[in-house]
Amino acid sequence: MTGPAGRSSASGVIAAALTPMRDDLAADADLLAEHCRLLLNAGCSGIVVLGTTGEANSFTLDERERILARLPDSGIAPAALMVGTGCCAVSDAARLTKHALSLGVERVLLLPPFYYRGVSDDGLFAALAQTIEAVADPRLRVYLYQIPQNTGVEFSVELIERLLRAYPGVIAGIKDSCGEWPATQALCARFGERLDVLVGSERFLLRALGAGAAGCVTASANVNATAIAKLYAARGDPAAPELQSSVTAWRSAIETFPLIAALKEIVARRSGIERWRNVRPPLCPLPARVAQALDRRLQQAQAKA
Amino acid sequence: MTGPAGRSSASGVIAAALTPMRDDLAADADLLAEHCRLLLNAGCSGIVVLGTTGEANSFTLDERERILARLPDSGIAPAALMVGTGCCAVSDAARLTKHALSLGVERVLLLPPFYYRGVSDDGLFAALAQTIEAVADPRLRVYLYQIPQNTGVEFSVELIERLLRAYPGVIAGIKDSCGEWPATQALCARFGERLDVLVGSERFLLRALGAGAAGCVTASANVNATAIAKLYAARGDPAAPELQSSVTAWRSAIETFPLIAALKEIVARRSGIERWRNVRPPLCPLPARVAQALDRRLQQAQAKA
Repeated sequence: MTGPAGRSSASGVIAAALTPMRDDLAADADLLAEHCRLLLNAGCSGIVVLGTTGEANSFTLDERERILARLPDSGIAPAALMVGTGCCAVSDAARLTKHALSLGVERVLLLPPFYYRGVSDDGLFAALAQTIEAVADPRLRVYLYQIPQNTGVEFSVELIERLLRAYPGVIAGIKDSCGEWPATQALCARFGERLDVLVGSERFLLRALGAGAAGCVTASANVNATAIAKLYAARGDPAAPELQSSVTAWRSAIETFPLIAALKEIVARRSGIERWRNVRPPLCPLPARVAQALDRRLQQAQAKA
Repeated sequence: MTGPAGRSSASGVIAAALTPMRDDLAADADLLAEHCRLLLNAGCSGIVVLGTTGEANSFTLDERERILARLPDSGIAPAALMVGTGCCAVSDAARLTKHALSLGVERVLLLPPFYYRGVSDDGLFAALAQTIEAVADPRLRVYLYQIPQNTGVEFSVELIERLLRAYPGVIAGIKDSCGEWPATQALCARFGERLDVLVGSERFLLRALGAGAAGCVTASANVNATAIAKLYAARGDPAAPELQSSVTAWRSAIETFPLIAALKEIVARRSGIERWRNVRPPLCPLPARVAQALDRRLQQAQAKA
């Protein structure tokens, strides 16, 4: 996941990995490791495990630690990984972050505490600061996870500046999943030279790279990694806009369905591994009828591409 | 917390207790026990501990278990308690619920999983069903915690009916903190005879009791328990509307400030115990200037009452 420039440490196409589960809904960490290998071979520069797409918050902390620990054991280099460690409780986020570092995984994707709404920048700063100081490890690289549609809170520009001043080197990037291009563009313009701005959908990849982003972290890479990696490699080429249209068509097709269940359905169908369809509540697998509609929709997108 | 009728098991004025903290932000469970005693002596029929007001989600699971365990040890009857045990992960909710039952606390206030949005009734049903079945204890009494402004998800009428059919006796009530009277009224009308509908603010107490509610669970009882309990006792009396106006004026005054920090400020000022001001991030204590404004606002409310 090492970027081309000196400072940039996460760039390119980073897959937000799904977490496969057995039929008893225990995580299948071996299958996850296998999936990570496929994604890296398909051209992804890195993998976010246990993020939103990975259903992290539906697992206990013990489970999250066990899932992550299995990956280096299975030959996935810690340097290729970024792991979601944000929790509502600061002590929980600190615990998961320390654990990641103990495995050599230095990049963490940090959700702000996500139960209380309308909280102040001071409160969010305190949460992040207490987490970073409890971890107290110079190797730590924090990626701020902007996903207000799930968290109900937002890292403001002022808060990001304040965190950067307080923890230079530690605050390494922003994953922006807000889904609104003007907001993403503003983050790229303001922070692109100082932080790895990673856009949360390949829909914005070319535009974001042009505006200063380092790459994308995207759920759809679970099923479309090769095309998205090809788009990233072609940035600046005349062929790039056409590749962008093609991956955008795929993304649009998938997004009309519940995203995580739809991605798992596609992986299950392609791999023939039934248990890939399993999700934890409150998510549900796609009903058969909806899965058929997804299949038709993807075939249409492919025909157009 | 036993209600007057056969079925009703939680009624009257139930305080949603604040969680006091030492200066290192560890919970001060002895001070919490003392606070619970005061609230019960002031006329509260019961106490919700570790709910939204109690900053439950800012504590680790181990901390939540230790806080709760200290209360029966300190002479607070388990029958007077209801405890918040809802988590994003079903296994965590089941663990906390089992622990509560092991202490004799049978009533739990269950948040739905609160990270994913736009989830289906099927997904929420599965989350609740898996929690209840993992606990597998006939003593369990579940109160569904409706607080969409924090969780982003809602228990629909259809979902509540389905849960009631699947787990009669176990599904015991709803705490409705949505803050919208028409929605509360609809829940009272539909479920008031079958469930303990507990309204999340004393602002609606008289109206809700008239519509079929069993009582209220309210944060402001931390600082205004006597008046709210007097209002509940006077329900049906000619004096009741005037008492309602008075408690509503207090509630309105407090609600113009960040609620939890404001309540802790008031308790700290009255008790002279400085550490009552402590909150965990992402919350912040009230700045001194704001605390003075709160004081003035409460004096005005009192003068009007």
